[in-house]
Amino acid sequence: MSDRREFKDLVSPEVAHETIETLELDPGTEEITLSNADGRILAERIDATLDVPGFDRASMDGYAVNARDTFGADEADPVVLEQIDAVHAGTTPSVEVVPGTCAEISTGAVMPPGADAVVIVERTDEQTAGETTEIEIRTSVAPGDSVMAAGADIAAGARAIGPGTVLTPREIGLLAALGYKSIPVRAKPRVGIVSTGDELVRPGQELDSSRGQIYDVNSDTIAAGVREAGGNPVLYPHAGDDYDEMERLLRTAADECDLVLSSGSTSASAVDVIYRVIEDRGELLLHGVSVKPGKPMLVGRMGQSDGGESAYVGLPGYPVSALTIFTTFVAPAIRDAAGIPEPVTATTSGQMATVERYSEGRTRLMPVGLVENSDRDTLVYPVDKGSGATTSLVEADGIVTVDADTSYLDRGEQVTVELFSPNVRAPPLLGVGEDDPLLNQLLDALTNPRYLPLGSREGIRRLRNGVPDIAVVAGPQQAEVDAIDIGGWSREWGFVVPAGNPDAVTGIESLVEEELQFVNRETNSGLRTSFSSAIGEYADAAGVDRHEVVSAISGFEFGLKAFESPARRVHAGRADVSLGLKETADRLGLSFVSLGTQPVRIFVNPDRLQKASVGHLTELLETIETLTDSFSGYEP
Amino acid sequence: MSDRREFKDLVSPEVAHETIETLELDPGTEEITLSNADGRILAERIDATLDVPGFDRASMDGYAVNARDTFGADEADPVVLEQIDAVHAGTTPSVEVVPGTCAEISTGAVMPPGADAVVIVERTDEQTAGETTEIEIRTSVAPGDSVMAAGADIAAGARAIGPGTVLTPREIGLLAALGYKSIPVRAKPRVGIVSTGDELVRPGQELDSSRGQIYDVNSDTIAAGVREAGGNPVLYPHAGDDYDEMERLLRTAADECDLVLSSGSTSASAVDVIYRVIEDRGELLLHGVSVKPGKPMLVGRMGQSDGGESAYVGLPGYPVSALTIFTTFVAPAIRDAAGIPEPVTATTSGQMATVERYSEGRTRLMPVGLVENSDRDTLVYPVDKGSGATTSLVEADGIVTVDADTSYLDRGEQVTVELFSPNVRAPPLLGVGEDDPLLNQLLDALTNPRYLPLGSREGIRRLRNGVPDIAVVAGPQQAEVDAIDIGGWSREWGFVVPAGNPDAVTGIESLVEEELQFVNRETNSGLRTSFSSAIGEYADAAGVDRHEVVSAISGFEFGLKAFESPARRVHAGRADVSLGLKETADRLGLSFVSLGTQPVRIFVNPDRLQKASVGHLTELLETIETLTDSFSGYEP
Repeated sequence: MSDRREFKDLVSPEVAHETIETLELDPGTEEITLSNADGRILAERIDATLDVPGFDRASMDGYAVNARDTFGADEADPVVLEQIDAVHAGTTPSVEVVPGTCAEISTGAVMPPGADAVVIVERTDEQTAGETTEIEIRTSVAPGDSVMAAGADIAAGARAIGPGTVLTPREIGLLAALGYKSIPVRAKPRVGIVSTGDELVRPGQELDSSRGQIYDVNSDTIAAGVREAGGNPVLYPHAGDDYDEMERLLRTAADECDLVLSSGSTSASAVDVIYRVIEDRGELLLHGVSVKPGKPMLVGRMGQSDGGESAYVGLPGYPVSALTIFTTFVAPAIRDAAGIPEPVTATTSGQMATVERYSEGRTRLMPVGLVENSDRDTLVYPVDKGSGATTSLVEADGIVTVDADTSYLDRGEQVTVELFSPNVRAPPLLGVGEDDPLLNQLLDALTNPRYLPLGSREGIRRLRNGVPDIAVVAGPQQAEVDAIDIGGWSREWGFVVPAGNPDAVTGIESLVEEELQFVNRETNSGLRTSFSSAIGEYADAAGVDRHEVVSAISGFEFGLKAFESPARRVHAGRADVSLGLKETADRLGLSFVSLGTQPVRIFVNPDRLQKASVGHLTELLETIETLTDSFSGYEP
Repeated sequence: MSDRREFKDLVSPEVAHETIETLELDPGTEEITLSNADGRILAERIDATLDVPGFDRASMDGYAVNARDTFGADEADPVVLEQIDAVHAGTTPSVEVVPGTCAEISTGAVMPPGADAVVIVERTDEQTAGETTEIEIRTSVAPGDSVMAAGADIAAGARAIGPGTVLTPREIGLLAALGYKSIPVRAKPRVGIVSTGDELVRPGQELDSSRGQIYDVNSDTIAAGVREAGGNPVLYPHAGDDYDEMERLLRTAADECDLVLSSGSTSASAVDVIYRVIEDRGELLLHGVSVKPGKPMLVGRMGQSDGGESAYVGLPGYPVSALTIFTTFVAPAIRDAAGIPEPVTATTSGQMATVERYSEGRTRLMPVGLVENSDRDTLVYPVDKGSGATTSLVEADGIVTVDADTSYLDRGEQVTVELFSPNVRAPPLLGVGEDDPLLNQLLDALTNPRYLPLGSREGIRRLRNGVPDIAVVAGPQQAEVDAIDIGGWSREWGFVVPAGNPDAVTGIESLVEEELQFVNRETNSGLRTSFSSAIGEYADAAGVDRHEVVSAISGFEFGLKAFESPARRVHAGRADVSLGLKETADRLGLSFVSLGTQPVRIFVNPDRLQKASVGHLTELLETIETLTDSFSGYEP
């Protein structure tokens, strides 16, 4: 087994881009039917192989003639021709129009042989002479008059569509007109995704948390990114610690794919296997890039069993980091190989909403979120400062690249954001604050709001920084912030206990006096603030120090994230008492000991009052009575 | 059979939009796997049903302890705990950490029961005391220190993603983290497309031009548009004049689809069938809209056999008109039903490149092309003024809506263009002029150029109007236009005759003196201009009037569109002599009678010299020698 490498030779992001550009990903061409062709890239020039229309076509109703027979004819001196046929749309002319004759013809019909013009019916008269019908022609016509010549729309041999054209409905229409049922397009590069974390389980399978398993996030995220970039992702899931099996998978992926990505590798042994396979079968082109995140990025190439070559790029393990490196370095290479132009919406620009300082001394790929102000200017704020949280995936809209020598980005500075998907756009509403079930229902009624349930305190803090549109604040916390209160509700809070309240919990005194395992909410939550106030009042009434009360409560310091999480621990039998809402206790079938009610208020950033989404939310709050009715313990 | 309706009650475009909005297209929801979910619309709110991570997770290497056991510990006064277990990532802790004990733990491992904090290894010392291992703890920790609590990333019960969210890679990542293998999304509305022209043949099938058949363009064009708008198109092809069969098809389409579109109907009987089916089974909501094109647009609804309802919209027959009406009226309704937001790139804005006057007195949906100047401003010019040509499909990028009371659009006026596809963008190069095989090869080397082979004269005319980037001019035509000649080549031209020259054609005299069927090029072409000059010289030399010469040539007035078309008529035995290039004669295996060489020059619009595409073309022209080598009769 090869030694674990140190990342001593970090290359610049530019060198990493250049190295990836040298990789051979060309998937060749494939033939597809027209009905699957939209969005694909035409591989070769298509010339017209037939005339459209394919026949000389009468464009008026009248008589098909040889124009020379009409020369000199006028109202005063008409020419008389013998009618020898009548041709209608959808029929085949059966007789040749020889000099001295003509054929009745209708619009869209095929011109009979010998005829080169149509005299419109209005300039003719029909006369019967015995067995023959004679037509008096009262005008002279030139060859081609009232005839759409074969090929007048598209001529056989003409260049129709060039190679590299993105096929949209109109190109597909032209190809249909030329009779193509299938066409050659650039094939989609096959991109293998090998997941290498021992603890990873595929979504849909059973998760054994007691063994520390988690779901594999990166495989599906990157697969979706591959599809958006015009590639064809192939998942090679791997779990467990069988490294021979993993080596076999990697070799299979290299044989079957134009590019192999690995992601989620956290164990040293997994990285060793990757090194070994690349060095056995190809070449490691770089290991380590001077960029944050993504420092341990690997790039290499591997020979295929059939003599071809597959490329390899190793992505970091944290979801946002993996998507960042994929978007910045890998997606452009896949698009190139697929022949797809960069989407118009691949980037957007905006102003920094906050001041940011940097001291890393290497290029930083900063995940950012977007929000619009009332003037529809886009504001950009950093998210996920290395937390590795999965939730920050949906908070991050894209990446701002900050050069290694930039130490400072000022508020209002213009930056370019590389979006995580061409379908990403600034959310119509950005909110931060308390987690609340009624609020969740309000959010469902809005169009794609982004709400970060980080607690009332964090909501106030961020609103003060001017980033979100709204902050939702619960509890006695004073909103020391320049903001507009657009409404709210109150909710009953207290202790959630097992059904029937087996420990006969009556209030804070039960937690202090008895050996009960308590579960708290995190410190930023308004529930926690109200609880802290209640403890202060309890301590004052009992004439003891607040800290004494707190330290007598087993589990006080252990605060959970969502409003429902502590109650779920009680429900699961892992705690005796939790901080929570009456609504949660009722919904989960648990018992409840009320400690009071607290207000939940929605504060709007004064810069955002004119936003349509804020207007919509304000309207919804006017009907709050109907909403509070369906939540136990809620009042308008 | 119901009577054919007249379009007496034309409604305004606004009423048409409103009527289409009232149609019920909602396709409901469907469950799809995560790997097919990108770009789809989440149908319901997804809440977290599990904690991520699902277990309390050590975030450092060290010792799992009950924090209370460490209270008061420091460097001077350490606490000693008995080590009772060692827990590594991927294993299940087997022993409870009771007071006075601890367990060795590594990053990522599951916290053992009883432990609520990790003391990092650097603040500990190991000592062996007989059979037991004792750990000296030199710091006090609080509950939760160096532990990522279960649910700290995503808490069970938290609102994860709201209904209506467009699923991009990041949302898919979050859903994967929550273990979802499949999710409920908005179903794609099923859109049936019934083609109703008797003369229409599906691409890929045999075309009988002698019966006046043409390929069905609109079905595939509209199907691609339906897919882009988020619908699921179903083609119901119909050919021939069996109207019972067509009625059956329409009823089937209505039963199987949320929306039925018909297009291409040209015959009165087809429209009658549509009327009958709609009136039998539903309701005709409007017939006729005061808009050009699209006046005969029909909108209605039809009952389904199972009691449901299907909507119906009839589109015009000309391809550009059908796509225009689809884009303007139908695509927004499909997007609404699919829950898809309007793409950011659905519209663009630009300045009118020409002056346009209107006198229709009804709303005009003007198909336009786009071109960028050197400053990357978008210029907009009208195309396809009702010609119905299929080729104008690829010239038109979108639609400008001109109000009924607008009689004039000035050059430079700002207009909004509704693009025919979110993938449409202004072509990097717009050229107009002569049709030439070497030019076609040059165009293949450029990125997605748009070239309209409308002849040298039209090239000059349009360049004078300032619209295209380049004009390609062949023959003696003087470029009376302010433009820059960036290079060109010469080509040998003359008569293309059957192989072996059976009629012993020697020059113009053969056409004048013998009964030969000639095929000309259209009057805008440079080939035609050179031929006309040669006729003038021949007439002068022969001492006759030019018109005498021309009228002695059978077929002189009948000019075809592409450079190769006349020669193809000779090749097909439908003519004796054609105007053409030596290159074409050689390539088709025909004989050639030379009449001279003519220059082909590329003129650049002075406003466009700085365009990257013009620079690229200029570079390509520097290597013209290697190109002319492979074209017979061509010289640099």
